[in-house]
Amino acid sequence: MVDKRQRFLDAFDIIRAELLAHFAGENMPKDAQEWYKRNLDYNAPGGKLNRGISVTDSAEILKGSPLTDQEYFRAAVLGWCVELLQAFFLVSDDMMDQSVTRRGQPCWYRVPNVGNIAINDAFMLEGAIYHLLKKYFRQEKYYVDLLDVFHETTYQTEMGQLVDLITAPEDVVDLSKFSLDKHRFIVLYKTAYYSFYLPVALAMHFSHITSPSAYDLAKTILLPLGEYFQIQDDYLDCFGSPEQIGKIGTDIVDNKCSWLINVALQHASPAQRKTLDENYGKKDKDAEARVKVVFEEVGLREKYAAYEESSYERVMGLIQTIPEGGLKGGDGEGALKREVFKSFLDKIYKRTK
Amino acid sequence: MVDKRQRFLDAFDIIRAELLAHFAGENMPKDAQEWYKRNLDYNAPGGKLNRGISVTDSAEILKGSPLTDQEYFRAAVLGWCVELLQAFFLVSDDMMDQSVTRRGQPCWYRVPNVGNIAINDAFMLEGAIYHLLKKYFRQEKYYVDLLDVFHETTYQTEMGQLVDLITAPEDVVDLSKFSLDKHRFIVLYKTAYYSFYLPVALAMHFSHITSPSAYDLAKTILLPLGEYFQIQDDYLDCFGSPEQIGKIGTDIVDNKCSWLINVALQHASPAQRKTLDENYGKKDKDAEARVKVVFEEVGLREKYAAYEESSYERVMGLIQTIPEGGLKGGDGEGALKREVFKSFLDKIYKRTK
Repeated sequence: MVDKRQRFLDAFDIIRAELLAHFAGENMPKDAQEWYKRNLDYNAPGGKLNRGISVTDSAEILKGSPLTDQEYFRAAVLGWCVELLQAFFLVSDDMMDQSVTRRGQPCWYRVPNVGNIAINDAFMLEGAIYHLLKKYFRQEKYYVDLLDVFHETTYQTEMGQLVDLITAPEDVVDLSKFSLDKHRFIVLYKTAYYSFYLPVALAMHFSHITSPSAYDLAKTILLPLGEYFQIQDDYLDCFGSPEQIGKIGTDIVDNKCSWLINVALQHASPAQRKTLDENYGKKDKDAEARVKVVFEEVGLREKYAAYEESSYERVMGLIQTIPEGGLKGGDGEGALKREVFKSFLDKIYKRTK
Repeated sequence: MVDKRQRFLDAFDIIRAELLAHFAGENMPKDAQEWYKRNLDYNAPGGKLNRGISVTDSAEILKGSPLTDQEYFRAAVLGWCVELLQAFFLVSDDMMDQSVTRRGQPCWYRVPNVGNIAINDAFMLEGAIYHLLKKYFRQEKYYVDLLDVFHETTYQTEMGQLVDLITAPEDVVDLSKFSLDKHRFIVLYKTAYYSFYLPVALAMHFSHITSPSAYDLAKTILLPLGEYFQIQDDYLDCFGSPEQIGKIGTDIVDNKCSWLINVALQHASPAQRKTLDENYGKKDKDAEARVKVVFEEVGLREKYAAYEESSYERVMGLIQTIPEGGLKGGDGEGALKREVFKSFLDKIYKRTK
């Protein structure tokens, strides 16, 4: 059996060739074609590809038997569109955050001669999505639904990014701006919609599921799942072992509006609050350590463990509202199945990296 | 009769209210709603609004009688979508070019506290387009065509911007990278598609014109018209009077790949070429003056006058390929009319500002 990641990467070769052939056909100058190729190669693959691969995985579960090669490729196109959307966000987020590295290499805007051209390069990663959707899906009844879900998700992610940027700027620390409500908005809009709902919604359209209530149900399950995933991410950033998560957490020094600081603020005594106000978001190891002491004092480890259990129960309960044989929806042929969501939950529950 | 510009601006009040009501309905925090309002107000209106107003103008010509208030508003939504697209491009172009002012005020990214958040703000101006199209046009048969033409035009503009950015960076002058072919690609892709073809294509869809050949014909006329417009712009930047064009041209000092430098390169003697190589793109008044001397020596004024005449003839000839009574297209009800294009040409021919 071919490795799952490699099979998905192989599809990208065809996709990239299509994108470049289009530019060549428009008589774009050679140096610009080369530039775009480099942009695609540098920014689209190279991550964990979880989001993209979850489209092909979900499509296979919904079909109930292995996808043919042609079906696989088409589902992979949708998966790569999610990865291109993510690349569009990451290239630009890195500029907005003035980040230094991404996926073990310099951020794209920091590559020599790229600089601010990275802004337009990010746009072109997004532009590629709609070229691909038109090329491979224009004849499908659900083409317009694919466009709508990409537009909505993109807008939602941008809304989440805006709230994140103005709530937690790296240079002005003001914990009174934080709240669990804002944290929840940021997590749902900036991450959960595009990372969890979008891949499954694409697989559902691909599988000819048409009933709006099936999409509503999927959202009802996937948004809490995405929230749980992000809160876990926040937890591991502080309490995970660097060996396991593969990086050293920086949320505290970066003034991130994370679940931990928001729960700590809710339970802090006046003295602890003072410590948080004075030390959060400082580029200083000792300040960071003082924040961590408060995190331990207010019992964040236990609070997270309780949150994790209740989240798991809640999501599992939601998944069980789907009839065992699947939820037949609308006049389409497809049915929504529990296994789509269970496979997500299994990958996430009690992960340590 | 209400002033045309004012009527178009009035429609924006309703559009902005819709965009903000949507955010309020999603429970976005108040400060983020306020931020978005400021982003919209600062960047969407304030320009000449020619592109947007040409949608409503063209829709009225295609109808052949005044639009009802409801028709006008819906056409104006499409017009504002073009203006939002332009705002998305301008906010980001200004960052890439490190421009200082735009429309007589600081560029958005230079407004205090905005900075790099302007990147996400640009995205959200684009995002607004698809929210509006869905809100007001989802039920139309031509909804998917509106999405396709916005996607294609956006991608084309980004392609043009890429070629422009790598051909004529402000800091590295290399005239051997220039050519009339590249100039033509940049002009068509970066300007003509979104400024000329897009508004008319939108008005045509709005008017239920369905035949692909009508769209091909419109493109055949509007792309040369857009090219003519941009070459005129290049000409006026150097030879227009600052009083008339309302600004002092900077194409020479900014190392722009303009029509003038490309034609001059074609006709320059080795000595003149040396002068151009040594003086083009320098932030220096004397260097600029030396370039202008070569521009005069090679006869750019006359060459432009000849170009303008032949362009006018060519576009007029193309317009006359449309039957006098209009080109009835497909099974839609609408017909394409000469007047749509004539009104564009009249506004442009021999303009001095």
